[in-house]
Amino acid sequence: METRSREELYINVQPIQAAGRLTADAMKAMISYGDGYSVCDFCLKPFRLDKIKKPAIEEFHFELAKFVGMDEARTVPGARRGFQAVVSSLVNKGDSVVLQAVGHYTEFLAIEQAGGIAHEVPINTSGITTGDAVAQTIEKARKKDGKLPKLVIFDHFDYTNANEHDIKGAVKAAKEFGIPVLYNGAYTVGIKPVDGKALGVDFVVGSGHKSMASPAPSGVLATTKEGAKKVFRTTKIEGDVSGRKFGIKEVEMLGCTLMGANIVAMMASLPTLRERVKHWDAEVKNSNYFVNEFLRVDGNKVVSECPRKHCLTKVDCTESFDKIAQKHKDHGYFFTHELDSRGITGIFPGATRSFKMSTYGLTESQVKYLAEAFVEIARKHSLEVH
Amino acid sequence: METRSREELYINVQPIQAAGRLTADAMKAMISYGDGYSVCDFCLKPFRLDKIKKPAIEEFHFELAKFVGMDEARTVPGARRGFQAVVSSLVNKGDSVVLQAVGHYTEFLAIEQAGGIAHEVPINTSGITTGDAVAQTIEKARKKDGKLPKLVIFDHFDYTNANEHDIKGAVKAAKEFGIPVLYNGAYTVGIKPVDGKALGVDFVVGSGHKSMASPAPSGVLATTKEGAKKVFRTTKIEGDVSGRKFGIKEVEMLGCTLMGANIVAMMASLPTLRERVKHWDAEVKNSNYFVNEFLRVDGNKVVSECPRKHCLTKVDCTESFDKIAQKHKDHGYFFTHELDSRGITGIFPGATRSFKMSTYGLTESQVKYLAEAFVEIARKHSLEVH
Repeated sequence: METRSREELYINVQPIQAAGRLTADAMKAMISYGDGYSVCDFCLKPFRLDKIKKPAIEEFHFELAKFVGMDEARTVPGARRGFQAVVSSLVNKGDSVVLQAVGHYTEFLAIEQAGGIAHEVPINTSGITTGDAVAQTIEKARKKDGKLPKLVIFDHFDYTNANEHDIKGAVKAAKEFGIPVLYNGAYTVGIKPVDGKALGVDFVVGSGHKSMASPAPSGVLATTKEGAKKVFRTTKIEGDVSGRKFGIKEVEMLGCTLMGANIVAMMASLPTLRERVKHWDAEVKNSNYFVNEFLRVDGNKVVSECPRKHCLTKVDCTESFDKIAQKHKDHGYFFTHELDSRGITGIFPGATRSFKMSTYGLTESQVKYLAEAFVEIARKHSLEVH
Repeated sequence: METRSREELYINVQPIQAAGRLTADAMKAMISYGDGYSVCDFCLKPFRLDKIKKPAIEEFHFELAKFVGMDEARTVPGARRGFQAVVSSLVNKGDSVVLQAVGHYTEFLAIEQAGGIAHEVPINTSGITTGDAVAQTIEKARKKDGKLPKLVIFDHFDYTNANEHDIKGAVKAAKEFGIPVLYNGAYTVGIKPVDGKALGVDFVVGSGHKSMASPAPSGVLATTKEGAKKVFRTTKIEGDVSGRKFGIKEVEMLGCTLMGANIVAMMASLPTLRERVKHWDAEVKNSNYFVNEFLRVDGNKVVSECPRKHCLTKVDCTESFDKIAQKHKDHGYFFTHELDSRGITGIFPGATRSFKMSTYGLTESQVKYLAEAFVEIARKHSLEVH
């Protein structure tokens, strides 16, 4: 297997890798706890992974709940497993869920897995999901199905454009109908402050490998005391011959939660996350700096909302770099090579029309260098720069 | 966080850690691919993780299917997620599943999660699940529920005593009723040869962190072409506003399967697994050597079947070391300390009555040393040794 070195050798603007790079502490923890059941050395009564005190997994779970402003938290193998647990707990076959027309695909899969129906909330002309649109979709769903949806899933920032959607309006709308809200924080938890209780949501899901400087698969599902009764319900099944019961194992968690290298790496990264979310404004400032420089190239467009409120941005170069690509012997790869030769990677290979990139975690000087590279490549290929 | 060093400093006989220790190659792979979405550098069409060619994840999936003698394989975050995918695909609310009275608890949780009913197959007086008992339980379930069970889950070796159960008999019984069989290989896949097709099973589940020298959570779910149509079915859901479809993403896998450090470590360990399963007989021989020496101590008993067919063994020292513990100021911890001072760890701290241990992966001389330690501790505390 080839050694992976892009994080060491390049400025990596890959849209979903930026905030999942490990901290040095997480890497150390992984190395120490790489073996299979490594965290189970001191698994004592009541024999559930999230109750282990050495390493301090139990305490970490309290800290994790606090970190997202909720009462209880569990780790999960990826945000998608958090969606699955919530949907599976609240949605029976034929029940419906309201989610965004820009919602993440794994939310749809979780609904399909539970036999549920998906009702999408359209975005407005600015690409934003508003609270009013959520209310209208709930009404529409009620009329169509003859009953209210069981859940609203809401991506604070969507995965395509990373536009900020009206989470407060969505919560207000859902609460008027008494419908619980799952806050999908895959693009927020771990990079910007998230306070679930302040937002009034019932569930917060975050992605360890996307935004919490953790290895894949990892994630968090946090909830209120009320929500915990449903989603973290303990097992009731019994063996009809053996008479066995299974104690405090939780059904949706399938017993023990995230183990080994992944949980210890999450633990090791948490102090860094706590600190770095305080600097979200600086990250967004970098993002806007880049976008403004990028727009100096004649024909370059930004598909995401502007000014940027996130570091992930979808851009469109159909009228600039793609025009060069049309005539170039390497087609779109000319652009990839130009970036590569400048030590920049992470943009979809060969893409010169529409692509996503992220400036998250870059230093100010790296962002400047990145922006200059775009301008320089434009000039080299005779595109006008304003 | 404390550095974990028990694998470096001790002979570790912890029952579920022995076969999950990483290979050196797995550790190297983990270090190289620790970052969140590390394996997605070259994720091209059709945009599904198990189709990635660099690193060779796609090929690994073919190899993995072959390794367990099935047609198709997917990686899962732990064996339990494999049970969940199969049960969720085959079992509707009110349907039943036949499994062993010694079956693993996560199988019960998967059934509970799907709203299913569990019918346990009793063991015989030798602690073994026979094919006849499976047939009788299926008949009993049919009478009670008015319909046949939808699935038989069968642990080849159970997690308590690691006795070998009659998998061939179980398959024969299930097939007579036309019921598919899930082979739980958490205690076999990766340490002894497993050929699912030869056994005639429909699904094979293995645990990466338990028996495949891989970090947690990891595992494999493999199946036949027929089984794949059900359990690896692709999504059909559509966005009612966006018109989005989600391509070849698989519902039960929730899209992309095991990522990052965990998948590359599994990949790096596979060549070792292929080699080590050939030496299962030598491992079992070591296990029996230890057990025979252990039984030289007056009062020591083996709860598992004898001769041993597995390296994990449940023993009982109520009439030997526990008698010492009753009078010792440190109670059962005297035994822990005695072992610890000899560089042996992994037996439940303070346990002197019934406990589990595994000799898997120890060299011949380590097994000898381990056996001698038990005899030596017995003699030191004036227990008779035959």
